[in-house]
Amino acid sequence: MIMTKLSTKNLVSPKGFKAAGLHCGLKHKKKDLAMLVSEVPASVAGVFTTNAIQAAPLGVTKKVVYETKQMQALIVNSGNANACTGKQGKVDAEEMQQLTADKLAIDANLVGVFSTGVIGEIMNMAPVRQGVAKLDLQDSLESAIDFAQAILTTDTVMKNTAYSTIVDGKEVIIAGTAKGSGMIEPNMATMLGFITTDANISSEVLQQTLSSLTDVTFNAITVDGDTSTNDSVVIMANGLAGNEPLTPTHPDWANFYKTLQVVAEDLAKMIAKDGEGATKLIEVNVVQALTDEEARKVAKTVVGSPLVKTAVFGADANWGRVIAAVGYSGASVDPDKIAIKIGGKLLVEDGEPVPFSEEELMQILKQHEVKIDVSLGQGEGSGLAWGCDLTYDYVQINASYRS
Amino acid sequence: MIMTKLSTKNLVSPKGFKAAGLHCGLKHKKKDLAMLVSEVPASVAGVFTTNAIQAAPLGVTKKVVYETKQMQALIVNSGNANACTGKQGKVDAEEMQQLTADKLAIDANLVGVFSTGVIGEIMNMAPVRQGVAKLDLQDSLESAIDFAQAILTTDTVMKNTAYSTIVDGKEVIIAGTAKGSGMIEPNMATMLGFITTDANISSEVLQQTLSSLTDVTFNAITVDGDTSTNDSVVIMANGLAGNEPLTPTHPDWANFYKTLQVVAEDLAKMIAKDGEGATKLIEVNVVQALTDEEARKVAKTVVGSPLVKTAVFGADANWGRVIAAVGYSGASVDPDKIAIKIGGKLLVEDGEPVPFSEEELMQILKQHEVKIDVSLGQGEGSGLAWGCDLTYDYVQINASYRS
Repeated sequence: MIMTKLSTKNLVSPKGFKAAGLHCGLKHKKKDLAMLVSEVPASVAGVFTTNAIQAAPLGVTKKVVYETKQMQALIVNSGNANACTGKQGKVDAEEMQQLTADKLAIDANLVGVFSTGVIGEIMNMAPVRQGVAKLDLQDSLESAIDFAQAILTTDTVMKNTAYSTIVDGKEVIIAGTAKGSGMIEPNMATMLGFITTDANISSEVLQQTLSSLTDVTFNAITVDGDTSTNDSVVIMANGLAGNEPLTPTHPDWANFYKTLQVVAEDLAKMIAKDGEGATKLIEVNVVQALTDEEARKVAKTVVGSPLVKTAVFGADANWGRVIAAVGYSGASVDPDKIAIKIGGKLLVEDGEPVPFSEEELMQILKQHEVKIDVSLGQGEGSGLAWGCDLTYDYVQINASYRS
Repeated sequence: MIMTKLSTKNLVSPKGFKAAGLHCGLKHKKKDLAMLVSEVPASVAGVFTTNAIQAAPLGVTKKVVYETKQMQALIVNSGNANACTGKQGKVDAEEMQQLTADKLAIDANLVGVFSTGVIGEIMNMAPVRQGVAKLDLQDSLESAIDFAQAILTTDTVMKNTAYSTIVDGKEVIIAGTAKGSGMIEPNMATMLGFITTDANISSEVLQQTLSSLTDVTFNAITVDGDTSTNDSVVIMANGLAGNEPLTPTHPDWANFYKTLQVVAEDLAKMIAKDGEGATKLIEVNVVQALTDEEARKVAKTVVGSPLVKTAVFGADANWGRVIAAVGYSGASVDPDKIAIKIGGKLLVEDGEPVPFSEEELMQILKQHEVKIDVSLGQGEGSGLAWGCDLTYDYVQINASYRS
């Protein structure tokens, strides 16, 4: 399999994409409006929040993904989620779509709309209108950074990744940018992910691929268990690499599929690591579960446990909280067959404590990435999940988010 | 319905109960060993953690509840949960049962055993043996307080309640003591509850009653969503009040049932209010759900949301987080029919924001009890749940619990 990580490349690295981002005035100072456009209409696929309450832009964007089945441009604002905003919210999301279409002289049905920020406040459209007019779309690194910055809310860092692979002897680039920090939980919680590629692939195949990859990437992270009203991941594939259409029977399918998986996993892990107030990325790897699904369930339960998260923050090798979370995950477990490792050190075998050096474990738990391995002795299922520690800063950030 | 709250009475207020508590040495300084005994074998009922990993004492105690179907005494230690301790854990729990039986000269099958504290450490039995010998069982207020203190872990306050009612013209007293602060979540998470009564009632009727009340009381609270390996609520009814056996067809059934419900609800709310690091009790009341079960599910989801909990801590009227939690609760909702009140003030009607005074709401959110009302417009179901805010102190307590 061929895959090369691109160190300086970014969302506009694939052929034919341009981006822009600026401060229009929805937030006090930081950038809050972004746009992405492809030279030609692109195949599109999307996955969206499972929350029963969905923000207005979701309705607009789902129509593009599921009915138009092509996307050429998208607009994103941060600072206001345009959620629980009733009829006016719908009108505003549609206006954002139309403003973008008019600016680019394309059909409005080819434009996706995304919002993230506070729920329940009507959009202030005047700055959005002025901002759209000012957006200067370019295919430069700077414009991709502007885009990546403009979609952030409580995030502390941008989240960019890009890889190249080879299909039919031609270079195919897959790049991604995401935001997400709080209200992150499996099932697309306050997270926006944008993936671009110049691969030639149909919307149908792209949708199947994205859906199947989402379970093991974006849906395998959790920050606080809250699922948001807005979250969405979309991928646009504009075909400009010139390869033969990709399908699972294409000889280079693995190159494309695995590269896309790594892009999605990179973005997911960056989101988990940048969880609100987080100081550490936690990776939980579950093996010997009855099924892969049960393994993922256990992994997500452990990584989502507030008691595990605070123990990791405190560099406390409190494996009792790990085993308690395994026990209430709902998966099939036999207490006498459970083994637990933290940072590669065996702490529990056959459900009973194994002596270990507290000092050594504390050093391991002080690293920026903490790995927890759980073996259930039930079958062949395995799965990963990522999350972060729970800190004073999480409380501070969320006790005063609106102010 | 007749029910009188007893201000100074306590776990040994019902006729024929004695208690004791002392420091034996499992903890550094605080009391850590407690015993309760009835003059005669009592009818018994219990509800236990649903965690697949169950601590050793649970096995011992469930046998008493489900096989002996009578209990005359119980022993509790704090400081060590005796969970994930393998065969030695079982031996130690059985020894605690036998030590109690020997001290009281009763059958070991009449003795329940309960532990709470750190998971995965083998019990230090020497102090327990010495402590059991020293315990001085009395029916005084002081002895009940010793008991209530000795079962605590990270709790900041004792949790006691007692009421009297009338059955067959005779006074029946129902009293309760509980512990629980972290790892609290529906389904009996790190919580111990002990209820005593001198009512005459069979174990069978008592079990049905406790089970049905648990859903709307102990299982309606959440602190952090972590379900523990140890938690248990038991009720002992020794019949010394001298009433005719209570059943649902007894003319005074409502007196007994409602009084027991209030005792259980009092204990549950005290546990929620004393959640680790909590400064506020949050009560969520859901109405117009499709069913009572869905209403409770929504109430528990809202009260368990870290984002709602931190907003309440920060006195931020962030109803967007409430509606997002309603949306991901899994219950049937129609976004356009949702109404939300905080502290009695209407903030959302038909799914859209209603203007309100931020200043007024902040004052309401600064109280020690915050009520959130959610109306779903779906049917006739209603349900309550209780929880607490998420604070810096929760993180501090749990980042260093074992040290």
